[in-house]
Amino acid sequence: MQGMSWQERAAAKRDQQLEAVPREWVLKNLPETTQLDVSEFPKACQFLSGSEMKITESPVDVLLMNLTKGTWTAVEVTIAFSKRAIIAHQLVNCLTEIFINSALTRAAGLDDHLRRTGSVVGPLHGLPISLKDQVGIKGLDATMGFVSNIGSPSTKNSVLADILENLGAVLYVKTNVPQGCMWGETYNYIFGRTLNPFNRSLTAGGSSGGEGALIALIGSPLGVGSDLGGSIRIPAAFNGVYGLRPSFNRIPYAGCVNTYEGQNSVLSVMGPMSMSMEGIRLFMKSVLMMKPWQYDPLVIRKQWNEDEYHLVDYNLGKELCFAVLWDDGETVPHPPVMRGLEVTKQALVQAGHKVIDWKPIRHSEINQVAGKIWSAVGDAELEAITANSGEPIIGTMETSIEDLSTISEPMHRWPPVSLTAFEYWQVNAKQRELRQLYLDHWRETVSVTGTGRPIDAIIAPVAPYVAPPHGGHIYPGYTCVWNFLDYPACVVPLGLKVDPLLDVKTPRDSFHNDADQKNWESYDPDVYKNAPIAIQVVGRTLEDEAVVGISEIVDRALKTYQSATKA
Amino acid sequence: MQGMSWQERAAAKRDQQLEAVPREWVLKNLPETTQLDVSEFPKACQFLSGSEMKITESPVDVLLMNLTKGTWTAVEVTIAFSKRAIIAHQLVNCLTEIFINSALTRAAGLDDHLRRTGSVVGPLHGLPISLKDQVGIKGLDATMGFVSNIGSPSTKNSVLADILENLGAVLYVKTNVPQGCMWGETYNYIFGRTLNPFNRSLTAGGSSGGEGALIALIGSPLGVGSDLGGSIRIPAAFNGVYGLRPSFNRIPYAGCVNTYEGQNSVLSVMGPMSMSMEGIRLFMKSVLMMKPWQYDPLVIRKQWNEDEYHLVDYNLGKELCFAVLWDDGETVPHPPVMRGLEVTKQALVQAGHKVIDWKPIRHSEINQVAGKIWSAVGDAELEAITANSGEPIIGTMETSIEDLSTISEPMHRWPPVSLTAFEYWQVNAKQRELRQLYLDHWRETVSVTGTGRPIDAIIAPVAPYVAPPHGGHIYPGYTCVWNFLDYPACVVPLGLKVDPLLDVKTPRDSFHNDADQKNWESYDPDVYKNAPIAIQVVGRTLEDEAVVGISEIVDRALKTYQSATKA
Repeated sequence: MQGMSWQERAAAKRDQQLEAVPREWVLKNLPETTQLDVSEFPKACQFLSGSEMKITESPVDVLLMNLTKGTWTAVEVTIAFSKRAIIAHQLVNCLTEIFINSALTRAAGLDDHLRRTGSVVGPLHGLPISLKDQVGIKGLDATMGFVSNIGSPSTKNSVLADILENLGAVLYVKTNVPQGCMWGETYNYIFGRTLNPFNRSLTAGGSSGGEGALIALIGSPLGVGSDLGGSIRIPAAFNGVYGLRPSFNRIPYAGCVNTYEGQNSVLSVMGPMSMSMEGIRLFMKSVLMMKPWQYDPLVIRKQWNEDEYHLVDYNLGKELCFAVLWDDGETVPHPPVMRGLEVTKQALVQAGHKVIDWKPIRHSEINQVAGKIWSAVGDAELEAITANSGEPIIGTMETSIEDLSTISEPMHRWPPVSLTAFEYWQVNAKQRELRQLYLDHWRETVSVTGTGRPIDAIIAPVAPYVAPPHGGHIYPGYTCVWNFLDYPACVVPLGLKVDPLLDVKTPRDSFHNDADQKNWESYDPDVYKNAPIAIQVVGRTLEDEAVVGISEIVDRALKTYQSATKA
Repeated sequence: MQGMSWQERAAAKRDQQLEAVPREWVLKNLPETTQLDVSEFPKACQFLSGSEMKITESPVDVLLMNLTKGTWTAVEVTIAFSKRAIIAHQLVNCLTEIFINSALTRAAGLDDHLRRTGSVVGPLHGLPISLKDQVGIKGLDATMGFVSNIGSPSTKNSVLADILENLGAVLYVKTNVPQGCMWGETYNYIFGRTLNPFNRSLTAGGSSGGEGALIALIGSPLGVGSDLGGSIRIPAAFNGVYGLRPSFNRIPYAGCVNTYEGQNSVLSVMGPMSMSMEGIRLFMKSVLMMKPWQYDPLVIRKQWNEDEYHLVDYNLGKELCFAVLWDDGETVPHPPVMRGLEVTKQALVQAGHKVIDWKPIRHSEINQVAGKIWSAVGDAELEAITANSGEPIIGTMETSIEDLSTISEPMHRWPPVSLTAFEYWQVNAKQRELRQLYLDHWRETVSVTGTGRPIDAIIAPVAPYVAPPHGGHIYPGYTCVWNFLDYPACVVPLGLKVDPLLDVKTPRDSFHNDADQKNWESYDPDVYKNAPIAIQVVGRTLEDEAVVGISEIVDRALKTYQSATKA
């Protein structure tokens, strides 16, 4: 790579990627680039056989049942999802590393094991799992979207990759991210931009955008994303899939590439994304079963707790009390998001739960302090990484970035702050104070719920909009707030899409601030057409099991309500 | 206080303290200040009645049984321990805040409750618990040894104080610390120096030195200390009492005064000190029963796990494999400490366990990085606090400090480093790397234990010496290393004391370094005479329950071995 420009290095890497795609899976009948909604293409294109369609359309539990019984071999299942992943990639550009050959060798080994011993390797035997680019796999690059990182493959598996393989999973593709995973959208100089399958003029979100788009097209039954300020939940919501941001240090991160190394105030976390809540639960339960704290010193020694999942301390999930966050006091959500919250409320009430309003406190300050933590070292780290290749630091997600001629010098996403350690400690102390206030505020709701408990969960928007046009994700406050507080949050898609007839632009005559007004002005139902609608279910620190349990309740309530409404 | 010099403010506070001591408890028959061993004085002085002696000499479980049955009232028990605490204070100067009057009111309320309802308030009903000075109690100062903090009482209870009261405990005294709790000995300008009850020419250790000395004289059945770099374990070992450093964020810290606020790399933790392992277990189990994570956002949502305590994953505690750390490669322990390790080894082998040698890795580097974390902001914080009163920053624990005329300007315990946030992150990243290496090293012992498991616990010195003369605690490496790794560690006293006949100075002709040589040179069995001998039992992060369970096994093995040896 020496002597090559960063543009040449990126192009060489793309060539390498192309070589990893089986030639016969390169489609000739792709939709025109002007076709926005490509979500039905994998079904319609007839490229998958009948059994491959059946396999890929099966929920995770059905897949595992058939894999365990040997009805479907691991090789068959791996081929089916690999093919569909490659179709997805040709539609929305969602993959980075493609290693289907080694996945098939692995799958054949699993099939052989099952035939010989009659027993599965583990609870994920034969299940293909896609991974966000940063998850380290021995011998594969984990560029994280940096040209500088091309050609420096991981020297060993990350703890998470090892655990998933020990559970029986088949790893086959890694998925696209923005440069350094530091945006809520997905574009980098190596792999380019990931598009939203429901409307390719909209963003797939980020930073786990490749994962979100891939799963939405069912190119993967279960994927791993990471979330520092919303990077699992934004693409989950924008692509209409389920996604959990677990609490800090629950899922092992050791051996994955990361930025902000050594920042231990608001941590990035690994978590699952899937087409179903079963996928989410299965991932959490299985990974924790492997006692990851034995391998990663930061992982909390806490097994998956079935009592907590079954809501033993929350009236076993009956007659819960939810609080809806309609507006964080900074940016009022667009009409489709409001409709999503309203539908969720109705569904929960109809299922026998109580729903009150959540009074947000200090959200603006929380987001400011979170920003201060992440910007505490200015661009020092980004500059150090990009210096190796000379690639510019990416400073916007607008499509203009794709015209390289416009890039002259590094763009700053925020002013370089460069705190001293003492100033940094003060910011940390402020974080603790705000976490204390928020926890007290939550606990004090015991006086208004009527259940004898504080509220059981918050129902909140994931962003003040559904998937916006590329470059349009500018307000991360609805996700960051929970990262800052370390509150686990699970995105539940509603199965609803933006409908210009239902989601009309409502007039407003007062605004919280200029950004709020700008956000309102940016709404046009025709622009956002067909974008999925989702909400997030939020619990308190380390209530991961309860959040999964409650999200399943919310999901079931929504499905019951919607089928009743349709009927 | 305005217009007063810091010396006058300190003197006024001491006067206030004196007023809180019941006049009739001021003893006339105190031993001469030249009498070094005062450990038997509380028994010998005849100041406690027969029943008060019986109460204070009872183990925690016997106390609670009698309190629950009403055999002893909470008032009787509170008076007995208060009297003994005041005796202890007159011997070794171990208390700060004394609030026996309000404790008696509280005790009377508990007695009334039991009489009226027939049931106890909680599992600690009527048990007096002493608290390190920094634990916040509404209306009381928590100076932490800073003159600047005099007269700024806590505006509300700390979460821990609330929880202990809700469990039924009676809070009655707070205990002495060094200025800012930043030393392994105990001296400050307000309350002066705490002495070692077994040899008053030796240090009581610190920073929970008041607590250690008080418990050794049985002025408290159960106390709370805190540990940033050894501050529970050093005084526990030096005073011959039990003390547990729990993992980060297990016991609530919210509402306690602290230094290094916002430093979240190597955290101070609260933990129990007691005359028995029962006291240690009872504290952990009871506090966690109260779900402290509902009140302190940093506390890990993890209940006391009985399976982990009963060592279900460690062969139920039978035929364990221990590893002894004889020497950290920096400073070789003095002969009494070596004897303690050897006795422990023999006791464990005799009890059917396996004992191998622990190969320490990177201890020197670990301690250097820990120092870098704690000194990252230089003296900025200390200067900010002391500026209010003008008191000098204390830079040594030698007795010369007590001659105020020698103090001219702030003394630096370490050079002010003042890192940038970016440099600080690099140090944090280094910490993570070292924690990973240490965890891997531990796990890899599976190949040599013969149990199918890695070693179950490390047996280690607490310091390279027993309680040294005042100012002599200069090497904290044997405790800091476990704080840095966040490994829970429990001090088990051996019931042995330094004996010049047994603990002769052995010749050495090679040394790790100058400090090691200096430490060897400083040993003189007559100087250390009568100092208690102890070891610490170390587990991995969040193995608190297992460390308690294993420490009980070690404690029983030692008692069995020693009674057999004596017989």
